[in-house]
Amino acid sequence: MLDFNTAQTPTDALLATFPRHASGVSVITCSDASGNPVGFTATSMTSLGANPPLIMFSVARGASSWEAISQADYVGIHTLGAGNLELAKRMAADHTKRFEGDDWRSGPNGVPVFDCATSVLVAKVQQVINVADNAIVIAQVELGAVGAEDAALLYHQRGYHSPGSAL
Amino acid sequence: MLDFNTAQTPTDALLATFPRHASGVSVITCSDASGNPVGFTATSMTSLGANPPLIMFSVARGASSWEAISQADYVGIHTLGAGNLELAKRMAADHTKRFEGDDWRSGPNGVPVFDCATSVLVAKVQQVINVADNAIVIAQVELGAVGAEDAALLYHQRGYHSPGSAL
Repeated sequence: MLDFNTAQTPTDALLATFPRHASGVSVITCSDASGNPVGFTATSMTSLGANPPLIMFSVARGASSWEAISQADYVGIHTLGAGNLELAKRMAADHTKRFEGDDWRSGPNGVPVFDCATSVLVAKVQQVINVADNAIVIAQVELGAVGAEDAALLYHQRGYHSPGSAL
Repeated sequence: MLDFNTAQTPTDALLATFPRHASGVSVITCSDASGNPVGFTATSMTSLGANPPLIMFSVARGASSWEAISQADYVGIHTLGAGNLELAKRMAADHTKRFEGDDWRSGPNGVPVFDCATSVLVAKVQQVINVADNAIVIAQVELGAVGAEDAALLYHQRGYHSPGSAL
Protein backbone atom coordinates (compact mmCIF):
# COMPACT_ATOMS: atom_id res chain seq x y z
CA MET A 1 0.00 0.00 0.00
CA LEU A 2 1.32 3.45 -0.86
CA ASP A 3 2.62 5.35 2.10
CA PHE A 4 1.49 8.97 2.21
CA ASN A 5 4.37 10.84 3.75
CA THR A 6 2.78 13.37 6.07
CA ALA A 7 6.21 14.59 7.16
CA GLN A 8 6.98 15.76 3.62
CA THR A 9 6.11 19.28 2.46
CA PRO A 10 3.55 19.45 -0.35
CA THR A 11 6.22 20.98 -2.60
CA ASP A 12 8.52 18.00 -1.92
CA ALA A 13 5.60 15.65 -2.61
CA LEU A 14 5.12 17.24 -6.03
CA LEU A 15 8.84 17.19 -6.79
CA ALA A 16 9.10 13.51 -5.79
CA THR A 17 6.20 12.59 -8.05
CA PHE A 18 6.92 14.37 -11.31
CA PRO A 19 10.01 12.37 -12.27
CA ARG A 20 7.51 9.51 -12.73
CA HIS A 21 5.67 11.50 -15.41
CA ALA A 22 6.73 12.07 -19.02
CA SER A 23 5.76 15.02 -21.21
CA GLY A 24 5.68 15.84 -24.90
CA VAL A 25 7.95 18.69 -25.94
CA SER A 26 6.87 21.68 -28.00
CA VAL A 27 8.20 25.13 -28.83
CA ILE A 28 5.92 28.16 -28.42
CA THR A 29 6.70 31.38 -30.30
CA CYS A 30 5.29 34.87 -30.73
CA SER A 31 6.40 38.36 -31.70
CA ASP A 32 6.97 40.98 -29.04
CA ALA A 33 5.62 44.54 -29.23
CA SER A 34 8.66 45.57 -31.32
CA GLY A 35 8.22 42.69 -33.73
CA ASN A 36 11.14 40.67 -32.37
CA PRO A 37 10.81 36.88 -32.16
CA VAL A 38 10.30 35.35 -28.72
CA GLY A 39 9.84 31.74 -27.75
CA PHE A 40 10.50 28.89 -25.37
CA THR A 41 10.45 25.12 -24.97
CA ALA A 42 7.27 23.93 -23.24
CA THR A 43 6.31 20.60 -21.72
CA SER A 44 2.77 21.64 -20.78
CA MET A 45 1.17 22.06 -24.19
CA THR A 46 -2.00 20.07 -24.73
CA SER A 47 -5.17 20.31 -26.79
CA LEU A 48 -8.40 21.47 -25.20
CA GLY A 49 -10.95 20.07 -27.59
CA ALA A 50 -11.04 19.94 -31.37
CA ASN A 51 -14.30 21.80 -31.96
CA PRO A 52 -13.55 24.65 -31.45
CA PRO A 53 -9.87 23.70 -31.91
CA LEU A 54 -8.14 24.98 -28.77
CA ILE A 55 -4.71 24.44 -27.30
CA MET A 56 -3.34 25.46 -23.92
CA PHE A 57 0.05 25.74 -22.26
CA SER A 58 1.50 27.26 -19.13
CA VAL A 59 4.31 29.77 -18.79
CA ALA A 60 6.13 31.07 -15.73
CA ARG A 61 5.40 34.77 -15.22
CA GLY A 62 9.08 35.23 -14.40
CA ALA A 63 10.20 33.74 -17.73
CA SER A 64 11.97 35.84 -20.36
CA SER A 65 9.11 35.16 -22.79
CA TRP A 66 6.33 36.13 -20.40
CA GLU A 67 5.87 39.79 -21.27
CA ALA A 68 5.65 39.09 -24.99
CA ILE A 69 3.39 36.05 -24.56
CA SER A 70 1.05 37.99 -22.26
CA GLN A 71 0.61 40.67 -24.95
CA ALA A 72 0.58 38.45 -28.03
CA ASP A 73 -2.40 38.22 -30.35
CA TYR A 74 -1.07 35.05 -32.00
CA VAL A 75 1.22 32.22 -30.93
CA GLY A 76 2.98 29.50 -32.90
CA ILE A 77 2.82 25.97 -31.47
CA HIS A 78 5.52 23.65 -32.80
CA THR A 79 5.46 19.94 -32.05
CA LEU A 80 8.99 18.53 -32.02
CA GLY A 81 10.59 15.28 -33.13
CA ALA A 82 13.76 13.50 -32.12
CA GLY A 83 15.55 15.39 -34.91
CA ASN A 84 14.66 18.67 -33.17
CA LEU A 85 16.68 17.90 -30.04
CA GLU A 86 19.07 20.82 -30.63
CA LEU A 87 16.13 23.19 -31.12
CA ALA A 88 14.47 22.01 -27.90
CA LYS A 89 17.69 22.60 -25.95
CA ARG A 90 18.37 25.98 -27.56
CA MET A 91 14.83 27.26 -26.86
CA ALA A 92 15.25 26.30 -23.19
CA ALA A 93 18.68 27.98 -22.82
CA ASP A 94 19.95 31.60 -23.05
CA HIS A 95 16.99 33.57 -24.38
CA THR A 96 19.22 36.05 -26.24
CA LYS A 97 20.48 33.26 -28.52
CA ARG A 98 17.27 31.45 -29.39
CA PHE A 99 16.72 33.13 -32.75
CA GLU A 100 20.36 33.65 -33.76
CA GLY A 101 20.19 30.97 -36.47
CA ASP A 102 18.59 31.13 -39.90
CA ASP A 103 16.23 28.23 -39.18
CA TRP A 104 13.17 30.41 -38.54
CA ARG A 105 11.06 32.89 -40.50
CA SER A 106 8.17 35.22 -39.83
CA GLY A 107 5.06 33.19 -40.65
CA PRO A 108 1.30 33.83 -40.72
CA ASN A 109 0.19 36.68 -38.42
CA GLY A 110 3.83 37.49 -37.69
CA VAL A 111 4.35 34.27 -35.73
CA PRO A 112 7.98 33.03 -35.84
CA VAL A 113 8.00 29.61 -37.54
CA PHE A 114 10.68 26.92 -37.31
CA ASP A 115 10.23 24.93 -40.50
CA CYS A 116 12.18 22.00 -39.07
CA ALA A 117 9.39 21.22 -36.56
CA THR A 118 7.21 18.17 -37.10
CA SER A 119 4.17 20.47 -37.21
CA VAL A 120 3.18 24.07 -36.51
CA LEU A 121 -0.15 25.56 -35.52
CA VAL A 122 -0.88 29.29 -35.64
CA ALA A 123 -3.38 30.09 -32.92
CA LYS A 124 -5.13 33.25 -31.69
CA VAL A 125 -4.79 33.89 -27.97
CA GLN A 126 -8.18 33.81 -26.28
CA GLN A 127 -7.47 33.85 -22.56
CA VAL A 128 -4.48 34.31 -20.27
CA ILE A 129 -5.25 33.12 -16.75
CA ASN A 130 -2.81 34.02 -14.00
CA VAL A 131 -2.35 31.32 -11.37
CA ALA A 132 0.20 32.07 -8.64
CA ASP A 133 3.56 32.69 -10.40
CA ASN A 134 2.43 31.07 -13.64
CA ALA A 135 -0.16 31.66 -16.32
CA ILE A 136 -2.27 29.39 -18.48
CA VAL A 137 -2.64 30.53 -22.08
CA ILE A 138 -5.57 29.31 -24.16
CA ALA A 139 -5.47 29.87 -27.91
CA GLN A 140 -7.70 28.94 -30.83
CA VAL A 141 -6.10 27.28 -33.84
CA GLU A 142 -6.51 29.09 -37.15
CA LEU A 143 -3.92 27.45 -39.43
CA GLY A 144 -1.63 24.47 -39.42
CA ALA A 145 1.19 22.82 -41.34
CA VAL A 146 2.59 19.34 -40.96
CA GLY A 147 6.35 18.86 -41.38
CA ALA A 148 8.78 15.98 -41.52
CA GLU A 149 7.75 12.59 -40.14
CA ASP A 150 9.82 11.85 -37.04
CA ALA A 151 9.58 10.13 -33.66
CA ALA A 152 7.94 12.46 -31.09
CA LEU A 153 10.21 14.23 -28.61
CA LEU A 154 9.64 13.62 -24.88
CA TYR A 155 11.02 15.12 -21.69
CA HIS A 156 11.40 12.69 -18.81
CA GLN A 157 13.69 12.56 -15.79
CA ARG A 158 15.65 15.64 -16.84
CA GLY A 159 16.41 14.27 -20.28
CA TYR A 160 15.02 13.96 -23.78
CA HIS A 161 13.69 10.72 -25.23
CA SER A 162 11.49 9.45 -28.01
CA PRO A 163 8.76 6.86 -27.47
CA GLY A 164 9.77 3.19 -27.37
CA SER A 165 7.82 0.50 -29.15
CA ALA A 166 4.08 0.15 -28.52
CA LEU A 167 3.03 -1.66 -25.33
CA MET B 1 9.40 25.24 -45.93
CA LEU B 2 6.24 24.18 -44.14
CA ASP B 3 3.12 24.64 -46.20
CA PHE B 4 0.26 26.22 -44.27
CA ASN B 5 -2.84 24.63 -45.71
CA THR B 6 -5.38 27.44 -45.93
CA ALA B 7 -7.93 25.07 -47.49
CA GLN B 8 -7.97 22.98 -44.29
CA THR B 9 -10.43 23.71 -41.49
CA PRO B 10 -8.78 24.74 -38.18
CA THR B 11 -10.21 21.58 -36.58
CA ASP B 12 -8.54 19.43 -39.26
CA ALA B 13 -5.30 21.36 -38.73
CA LEU B 14 -5.37 20.48 -35.03
CA LEU B 15 -6.24 16.85 -35.72
CA ALA B 16 -3.41 16.56 -38.28
CA THR B 17 -0.89 17.96 -35.81
CA PHE B 18 -1.58 16.14 -32.58
CA PRO B 19 -0.47 12.67 -33.76
CA ARG B 20 3.01 14.28 -33.80
CA HIS B 21 2.77 14.99 -30.05
CA ALA B 22 3.16 12.50 -27.18
CA SER B 23 1.62 12.80 -23.71
CA GLY B 24 2.21 11.35 -20.26
CA VAL B 25 -0.68 9.28 -18.93
CA SER B 26 -2.27 9.74 -15.52
CA VAL B 27 -5.45 8.70 -13.74
CA ILE B 28 -7.53 11.32 -11.95
CA THR B 29 -9.97 10.24 -9.23
CA CYS B 30 -12.45 11.79 -6.82
CA SER B 31 -15.56 10.87 -4.83
CA ASP B 32 -18.97 11.94 -6.05
CA ALA B 33 -21.62 13.55 -3.84
CA SER B 34 -22.77 10.07 -2.67
CA GLY B 35 -19.23 8.96 -1.85
CA ASN B 36 -18.86 6.71 -4.87
CA PRO B 37 -15.49 6.56 -6.65
CA VAL B 38 -15.18 8.33 -9.98
CA GLY B 39 -12.16 8.65 -12.25
CA PHE B 40 -10.69 8.73 -15.71
CA THR B 41 -7.50 8.42 -17.71
CA ALA B 42 -6.02 11.82 -18.58
CA THR B 43 -3.31 12.88 -21.01
CA SER B 44 -3.44 16.57 -20.10
CA MET B 45 -2.11 16.53 -16.54
CA THR B 46 0.85 18.82 -15.87
CA SER B 47 2.35 20.73 -12.99
CA LEU B 48 1.80 24.44 -12.66
CA GLY B 49 4.68 25.43 -10.43
CA ALA B 50 6.13 23.81 -7.34
CA ASN B 51 5.73 26.70 -4.90
CA PRO B 52 2.82 26.65 -4.30
CA PRO B 53 2.63 23.07 -5.62
CA LEU B 54 -0.13 23.11 -8.23
CA ILE B 55 -1.26 20.67 -10.88
CA MET B 56 -3.77 21.12 -13.67
CA PHE B 57 -5.66 18.92 -16.08
CA SER B 58 -8.56 19.25 -18.50
CA VAL B 59 -11.78 17.28 -18.62
CA ALA B 60 -14.58 17.21 -21.19
CA ARG B 61 -17.77 18.60 -19.69
CA GLY B 62 -19.65 15.80 -21.42
CA ALA B 63 -17.52 13.10 -19.74
CA SER B 64 -19.03 10.66 -17.24
CA SER B 65 -16.67 12.01 -14.54
CA TRP B 66 -17.47 15.67 -15.13
CA GLU B 67 -20.28 16.21 -12.61
CA ALA B 68 -18.28 14.64 -9.78
CA ILE B 69 -15.04 16.40 -10.73
CA SER B 70 -16.81 19.76 -10.94
CA GLN B 71 -18.10 19.35 -7.37
CA ALA B 72 -15.06 17.67 -5.80
CA ASP B 73 -13.08 19.23 -2.96
CA TYR B 74 -10.15 16.87 -3.50
CA VAL B 75 -8.75 14.92 -6.43
CA GLY B 76 -6.23 12.09 -6.64
CA ILE B 77 -3.56 12.39 -9.34
CA HIS B 78 -1.91 9.08 -10.23
CA THR B 79 1.14 8.94 -12.49
CA LEU B 80 1.24 5.63 -14.36
CA GLY B 81 3.98 3.26 -15.44
CA ALA B 82 4.21 0.64 -18.17
CA GLY B 83 2.92 -1.91 -15.63
CA ASN B 84 -0.29 0.13 -15.30
CA LEU B 85 -1.34 -0.37 -18.93
CA GLU B 86 -4.45 -2.34 -17.96
CA LEU B 87 -5.45 0.38 -15.46
CA ALA B 88 -4.99 3.12 -18.08
CA LYS B 89 -7.21 1.22 -20.53
CA ARG B 90 -9.84 0.39 -17.93
CA MET B 91 -10.10 4.01 -16.71
CA ALA B 92 -10.67 5.14 -20.30
CA ALA B 93 -13.36 2.50 -21.04
CA ASP B 94 -16.88 1.79 -19.67
CA HIS B 95 -17.23 4.09 -16.65
CA THR B 96 -19.47 1.66 -14.78
CA LYS B 97 -16.62 -0.90 -14.58
CA ARG B 98 -13.69 1.31 -13.60
CA PHE B 99 -13.84 0.54 -9.87
CA GLU B 100 -15.11 -3.06 -10.05
CA GLY B 101 -11.75 -4.52 -8.97
CA ASP B 102 -10.19 -4.60 -5.52
CA ASP B 103 -7.13 -2.61 -6.59
CA TRP B 104 -8.31 0.70 -5.09
CA ARG B 105 -9.15 2.05 -1.64
CA SER B 106 -10.52 5.24 -0.15
CA GLY B 107 -7.46 7.31 0.69
CA PRO B 108 -6.80 10.71 2.33
CA ASN B 109 -9.75 13.13 2.10
CA GLY B 110 -11.88 10.34 0.61
CA VAL B 111 -9.89 10.29 -2.62
CA PRO B 112 -9.91 6.87 -4.36
CA VAL B 113 -6.31 5.60 -4.49
CA PHE B 114 -4.86 2.96 -6.82
CA ASP B 115 -1.85 1.65 -4.93
CA CYS B 116 -0.38 0.15 -8.10
CA ALA B 117 0.32 3.63 -9.54
CA THR B 118 3.90 4.89 -9.72
CA SER B 119 2.85 7.85 -7.56
CA VAL B 120 -0.24 9.54 -6.16
CA LEU B 121 -0.85 13.13 -5.17
CA VAL B 122 -3.86 14.26 -3.13
CA ALA B 123 -4.72 17.80 -4.16
CA LYS B 124 -7.37 20.32 -3.15
CA VAL B 125 -9.34 21.79 -6.04
CA GLN B 126 -8.79 25.53 -6.31
CA GLN B 127 -10.33 26.56 -9.61
CA VAL B 128 -12.48 25.01 -12.32
CA ILE B 129 -12.42 27.09 -15.50
CA ASN B 130 -14.95 26.29 -18.21
CA VAL B 131 -13.61 26.69 -21.74
CA ALA B 132 -16.03 25.77 -24.54
CA ASP B 133 -17.03 22.10 -23.98
CA ASN B 134 -14.11 21.42 -21.64
CA ALA B 135 -12.88 22.58 -18.25
CA ILE B 136 -9.46 23.17 -16.77
CA VAL B 137 -9.11 22.03 -13.16
CA ILE B 138 -6.38 23.53 -10.98
CA ALA B 139 -5.59 21.85 -7.67
CA GLN B 140 -3.05 22.39 -4.91
CA VAL B 141 -1.06 19.38 -3.72
CA GLU B 142 -1.37 18.52 -0.04
CA LEU B 143 0.04 14.99 0.22
CA GLY B 144 1.94 12.55 -1.92
CA ALA B 145 3.18 8.98 -2.06
CA VAL B 146 5.67 7.39 -4.42
CA GLY B 147 5.02 3.82 -5.58
CA ALA B 148 6.86 1.20 -7.60
CA GLU B 149 9.68 2.25 -9.91
CA ASP B 150 8.60 1.69 -13.51
CA ALA B 151 9.02 3.18 -16.98
CA ALA B 152 6.61 6.09 -17.49
CA LEU B 153 3.46 5.45 -19.52
CA LEU B 154 2.89 7.54 -22.67
CA TYR B 155 0.03 7.96 -25.08
CA HIS B 156 1.04 8.56 -28.69
CA GLN B 157 -0.62 7.89 -32.05
CA ARG B 158 -3.59 6.11 -30.46
CA GLY B 159 -1.43 3.70 -28.51
CA TYR B 160 0.51 3.32 -25.28
CA HIS B 161 4.30 3.41 -25.09
CA SER B 162 7.07 3.91 -22.59
CA PRO B 163 10.04 6.20 -23.27
CA GLY B 164 12.91 4.83 -25.34
CA SER B 165 16.54 5.38 -24.41
CA ALA B 166 17.80 8.90 -23.78
CA LEU B 167 18.64 11.00 -26.84
